[in-house]
Amino acid sequence: MTETQTQPRPAAQLVDPAVLRVALLGCGTVGSQVARILLEDAGVLAARAGARLELAGIAVRDPDAQRDVELPRGLFSVDAEALVDSADLVVELMGGIEPARSLILRAVRKGASVVTGNKALLAQDGPALFEEADRNNAELSFEAAVAGAIPIIRPIRESLSGDRITRVLGIVNGTTNYILDQMDTTGAAFADALAEAQRLGYAEADPTADVEGHDAAAKAALLATLAFHTPVALEDVRCQGIAGVTAEDIAAAKDSGLVIKLLAIAELVETPDGVEGASVRVHPTLLPREHPLAAVRGAFNAVFVEAENAGELMFYGAGAGGRPTASAIMGDLVSTARRIVAGAPGRTDTATRKLPVLGIEAVTTSYSIGLEVADQLGVLSRVAAVFAEHGVSIEAMRQTLDGGEPGSGEGRAELRFVTHRASEKALAETVADIKNLDVVESVTSVLRVEGV
Amino acid sequence: MTETQTQPRPAAQLVDPAVLRVALLGCGTVGSQVARILLEDAGVLAARAGARLELAGIAVRDPDAQRDVELPRGLFSVDAEALVDSADLVVELMGGIEPARSLILRAVRKGASVVTGNKALLAQDGPALFEEADRNNAELSFEAAVAGAIPIIRPIRESLSGDRITRVLGIVNGTTNYILDQMDTTGAAFADALAEAQRLGYAEADPTADVEGHDAAAKAALLATLAFHTPVALEDVRCQGIAGVTAEDIAAAKDSGLVIKLLAIAELVETPDGVEGASVRVHPTLLPREHPLAAVRGAFNAVFVEAENAGELMFYGAGAGGRPTASAIMGDLVSTARRIVAGAPGRTDTATRKLPVLGIEAVTTSYSIGLEVADQLGVLSRVAAVFAEHGVSIEAMRQTLDGGEPGSGEGRAELRFVTHRASEKALAETVADIKNLDVVESVTSVLRVEGV
Repeated sequence: MTETQTQPRPAAQLVDPAVLRVALLGCGTVGSQVARILLEDAGVLAARAGARLELAGIAVRDPDAQRDVELPRGLFSVDAEALVDSADLVVELMGGIEPARSLILRAVRKGASVVTGNKALLAQDGPALFEEADRNNAELSFEAAVAGAIPIIRPIRESLSGDRITRVLGIVNGTTNYILDQMDTTGAAFADALAEAQRLGYAEADPTADVEGHDAAAKAALLATLAFHTPVALEDVRCQGIAGVTAEDIAAAKDSGLVIKLLAIAELVETPDGVEGASVRVHPTLLPREHPLAAVRGAFNAVFVEAENAGELMFYGAGAGGRPTASAIMGDLVSTARRIVAGAPGRTDTATRKLPVLGIEAVTTSYSIGLEVADQLGVLSRVAAVFAEHGVSIEAMRQTLDGGEPGSGEGRAELRFVTHRASEKALAETVADIKNLDVVESVTSVLRVEGV
Repeated sequence: MTETQTQPRPAAQLVDPAVLRVALLGCGTVGSQVARILLEDAGVLAARAGARLELAGIAVRDPDAQRDVELPRGLFSVDAEALVDSADLVVELMGGIEPARSLILRAVRKGASVVTGNKALLAQDGPALFEEADRNNAELSFEAAVAGAIPIIRPIRESLSGDRITRVLGIVNGTTNYILDQMDTTGAAFADALAEAQRLGYAEADPTADVEGHDAAAKAALLATLAFHTPVALEDVRCQGIAGVTAEDIAAAKDSGLVIKLLAIAELVETPDGVEGASVRVHPTLLPREHPLAAVRGAFNAVFVEAENAGELMFYGAGAGGRPTASAIMGDLVSTARRIVAGAPGRTDTATRKLPVLGIEAVTTSYSIGLEVADQLGVLSRVAAVFAEHGVSIEAMRQTLDGGEPGSGEGRAELRFVTHRASEKALAETVADIKNLDVVESVTSVLRVEGV
């Protein structure tokens, strides 16, 4: 394969446009792939970027550690600060808050642009880092931080920049999607599906960050920040994981033509008194099986976007893994290099307003509610009366009997309700009052429904 | 909703960065929506672009014609050239080759960037127009030209710029996808599904460009040009439409867990003697029902991309319509405005090499072949021998009897073969020889299979 150099571009102000020195911070699963691509595809990348991308060095704690990819020993260094100081472009793949944060600030303050996949850091400090980058005409790119290889940051920031995004629904955590998909396919219980995911390497030994939804919440904050052009922080995200999802929930969903997915949901909402704001949450969600997100199987990710003019869009692909994530890093790197070669300043901060972040109370959605009740005549009518009292309209009901003659009071029944759209407040009050009915033994599940 | 202006950016060289004058050429379904958005969302767009986007005028043939959107009469003009000369940014939505081509050249030659959705023009003259834009530091953006609202051009050009795309499979024509989906869902014949599509406005009175695959071929040429960084012209695309797809083909596909889609396929291939090149084609294609593209229903579009590092990606959404297409135009417009405000020159031509475009002979794929044969003992063995002679390996076979005792020679049988990957040449020879067998009455269908 031969690629010829394109026309030379106007020179950048600060750097030699023929060569851009790239510092790589971290050399794990993703970093080692980035290093490999920079070395293997140097010719092609130079043709596309308009400048040679020279791997200046790789900062690691232990230069002698075993890596996924064999790399020249001379590239490694333990002095990350010196490496940053010598670079035109910095790729940060250390993860965690420090020293990643200080090194990124060090880079942008001297005008070097940074490419990172560090969602934890961005969800905590994104707006401050974006501002600092802009102040120095540097740029902070982070396509790899959400949904791995899937181009979603750039489409939201650029392709949809002339539209009004009203809602983002994302399957942004492969581990939990794998577990829920296994439960759906095999009928397995949560604990067994988790164990299987751990055995296959889809879940870590300590799966908390994935299973409790913390990883998805960080990505939800980033997606909301970009989609609504307003800063949204991790603490603004209401988060519920999948540990409480039972095999019975999955089976009941299946019976109703639904599937349970852990969704990161960011939406523009309006309070009853007309205040517009953003609502951002992560929770297990029932979706109709015909919804495009329902077909996202295994550890794949997908982001579904609703915009005023574009309508419904979906972006699908691998959400993790060394090579896919490295692809996203390389896309940012080549795009940033092109901009530098063109002599344009970076621009990261796209927040053009400060919308209030509204609590989940401002959200209306449909709910699926499961109850265990005594199998007596008149129970349904008493439960239905509670819904009506709180203005929650019932769309569908299904009753399953469990022992005894129907209506004899000897057996038990399970009731599953699906409501029309209702407010979180009305629902919470409904559930509380239903729990107090003497004929109700327990509320077995409350799940939100989207896409209906 | 309030949006505050962001920090002012460094001034562009040629234009007042505070106001960019936008000329709109054409005011049909898409153009009228672009005008509406520019007028309605002026404040939000200014905040995002960093400059006010002022609709300077709309060039139309008949200012008094009825439009989808009510617009101030004073905006209309019949003098497109004068309008172009007064503008910083030109949106071309006239369609067709002339005068669109001359007006785009006029704009870029004076340094004005152009946003267009004109796939016919780009498939014919794209590379020449891209070069002319680059020579003048202008830019030609065309996200709307492929798959309507779906961001696919920008992700390929930027997000995947550090990866090696090996294949693109696209459902890029909503009319044919609607017709095939109807045939699949209802069992309708092609002619009836087409009539229904026309009744509902999904197909035009003269449906040739859609049904024969010409529209998809233009988009395939554009996708290949971008994906492989090499110029690909419309005449390089081998094209077969869907008029020959029968209800029997659809039913047989269904029986085998497959679905028929009209795909635009661009792939990197290698000839037996080691020459790497691009192969670009449009034809009805069998896909497994589990493939992400199989779930694309109705008039929706989707583009499936395979890249060396990113793996499999899919982009899904509305492929046509005034508002969705206008969303893509507006994304290009805001992104271009940001670049101008930042003072950077445009860059359109991303061809970094000149790959040979190889004929379909260089492609290997799986095939599904349907035959009507005499129901005699030994027929299968004679047909199978012909496959073997040409080195085409059979993956699966299914026989359906039609009258008479099995093997008695009184009835007929239909045979459906699915092959392993084989070259187009070996397959063509196999089919020719099978036709010559005295026991074969006819070859009822030859369809390519992807995604298996």
